[in-house]
Amino acid sequence: MEKVNLREKFALFSDHWRPRIAGELNGQQVKLVKFAGAFEWHHHVDEDEMFLVIEGEFVMEFRERKVELKKGEFLIVPRGVEHRPVAEREVQVMLLEPAGTVNTGNVRSELTAERLDWI
Amino acid sequence: MEKVNLREKFALFSDHWRPRIAGELNGQQVKLVKFAGAFEWHHHVDEDEMFLVIEGEFVMEFRERKVELKKGEFLIVPRGVEHRPVAEREVQVMLLEPAGTVNTGNVRSELTAERLDWI
Repeated sequence: MEKVNLREKFALFSDHWRPRIAGELNGQQVKLVKFAGAFEWHHHVDEDEMFLVIEGEFVMEFRERKVELKKGEFLIVPRGVEHRPVAEREVQVMLLEPAGTVNTGNVRSELTAERLDWI
Repeated sequence: MEKVNLREKFALFSDHWRPRIAGELNGQQVKLVKFAGAFEWHHHVDEDEMFLVIEGEFVMEFRERKVELKKGEFLIVPRGVEHRPVAEREVQVMLLEPAGTVNTGNVRSELTAERLDWI
């Protein structure tokens, strides 16, 4: 039961799109990830996903609209809804989703992070 | 599916210890709360709780130790662990816990928030 300092954790890695696990509660995991560029279009069949911007900004694209997210803002993407995050510049994001959620959801690609590490 | 700006939401209320619901996913709720002073000693039988400091700082007291939490830091308190938050000055906290979690856990007091509103 140790506290997590987000700034310190984000300083420990520099790659993009590969979430690190920073906490677990009630079957959910808190993950830290850096986005840069455009991700894959995908959805999650059984998992709702929360995105909280810690530093920077990005755009969550849906098929019919976009949501701009800045530091201190969060968005919950319900299961089944196709989406793709796009970050013009690097952004630090805290995710909350069920343990075992795969980052690319229903899609497999070179961006799929198969096994996540704790940080 | 609307984004939530934490600063804007925290500006909408000024009381202490009464969480507002700001989001829901996978049976969990994201709650916003302001702490000031000392809360009740309590535990949650079946719920793990996450505390992320958005603005300010507070101390999470346990029977055998304390954890100081500042802006940008989070702590997960596992179910069954007795705790009490103490804030010397007002602090803004984002909670994550299962829907239906009562703020005072196994204890009922004047600080118990029986029915929470969305914000």
